Amino acid sequence: MDPSEVTVPPLKDLTIDNITDNVKLINGQCPDPRFKYILERLVQHLHDFARETRLSQDEWMTGIQFLTSVGQICTDVRQEFILLSDILGLSLLVDSIDHPKPPASTEGTVLGPFHSHEAQSEPNGAQIAHDPDGEPCLVLCTLKDTSGKPIDGVKIDIWETDSKGFYDVQYAGREGPDQRAVMHSDEEGVFWFKAIVPVPYPIPHDGPVGK
Amino acid sequence: MDPSEVTVPPLKDLTIDNITDNVKLINGQCPDPRFKYILERLVQHLHDFARETRLSQDEWMTGIQFLTSVGQICTDVRQEFILLSDILGLSLLVDSIDHPKPPASTEGTVLGPFHSHEAQSEPNGAQIAHDPDGEPCLVLCTLKDTSGKPIDGVKIDIWETDSKGFYDVQYAGREGPDQRAVMHSDEEGVFWFKAIVPVPYPIPHDGPVGK
Repeated sequence: MDPSEVTVPPLKDLTIDNITDNVKLINGQCPDPRFKYILERLVQHLHDFARETRLSQDEWMTGIQFLTSVGQICTDVRQEFILLSDILGLSLLVDSIDHPKPPASTEGTVLGPFHSHEAQSEPNGAQIAHDPDGEPCLVLCTLKDTSGKPIDGVKIDIWETDSKGFYDVQYAGREGPDQRAVMHSDEEGVFWFKAIVPVPYPIPHDGPVGK
Repeated sequence: MDPSEVTVPPLKDLTIDNITDNVKLINGQCPDPRFKYILERLVQHLHDFARETRLSQDEWMTGIQFLTSVGQICTDVRQEFILLSDILGLSLLVDSIDHPKPPASTEGTVLGPFHSHEAQSEPNGAQIAHDPDGEPCLVLCTLKDTSGKPIDGVKIDIWETDSKGFYDVQYAGREGPDQRAVMHSDEEGVFWFKAIVPVPYPIPHDGPVGK
């Protein structure tokens, strides 16, 4: 937008108490009503947070530097902001809001930062994990609708870590995807594969969120 | 922290309504009371924001991608997260909270994203801006304490844009700093310099915040 076209409300003598309304007034020029509403609520909560905690300049700068490093470690195969959203509980919350769970269904969960689109399509019975240190695990699943009827032909995307708790994409110089597969449920809603017993794993420590 | 040392509270059957308390419980293991408090208030406001706006997965992803691009454009001479904080009014708010204005003093303002530490020390009367298209401007200032007494020997850091509204650091291949100087007030609290008349300038459009 050409800045000469914008009629900015006068902003003078800003105080701790009037700055929030002034910022809303400026951002209120946004023509999209949904975006305008989101921006308004974001500014309100951001300001309330700073006022409530009496956030200091040093703490603010620590936050700025943290968010910068979160952005800078992101690559095509690593989304550190999603990881941050995960540990703050925001990802699961948004998922719960956007996809309310029907009573008879399994709970949803979040995608997490280590999903990739490299998984190969595999037939039932495939060995999808090749870490020799992993404890073998046979996984047998049946996919049903909420009335208990099997569903066939559903695409299932599966991924897990190796026995050390790392996803394949966390290794530099890996040769290709491992511990990943895309499968399809058969006419009885069944899909099954050989993997390793999942291990608990920490938030990745090699980035700012883990730190 | 070794994950085996952490006693994580049981997190089961999370719902829109109990997730906030559960996240606080996990983050409540933080030993620093100030950090724990900030984290708790941050999570509360972040979750309230998402619940109030019924934030959708698509909107959340737009936010994630936006924050990622804000981090990725940051360099040593460009801090896009500070710019974002500026346009959301957060920078000025934190400054107001941290540095309350004494009654007889001039208002403070924010540093902005384009301050650099390259400015040369200049004597009174120096020409600090060299854009031939700028309208010349003589700036005469006196620095006084809140009782009106001049203060000498105060370091003043000055920077402005060129006539097109760009700071020197926004040009690739610039030769060195321009429109910048560090000066010191003399025994009468005076400092003065030759510059150009400041022009209004937009939020930089070459980054995600301007967009």
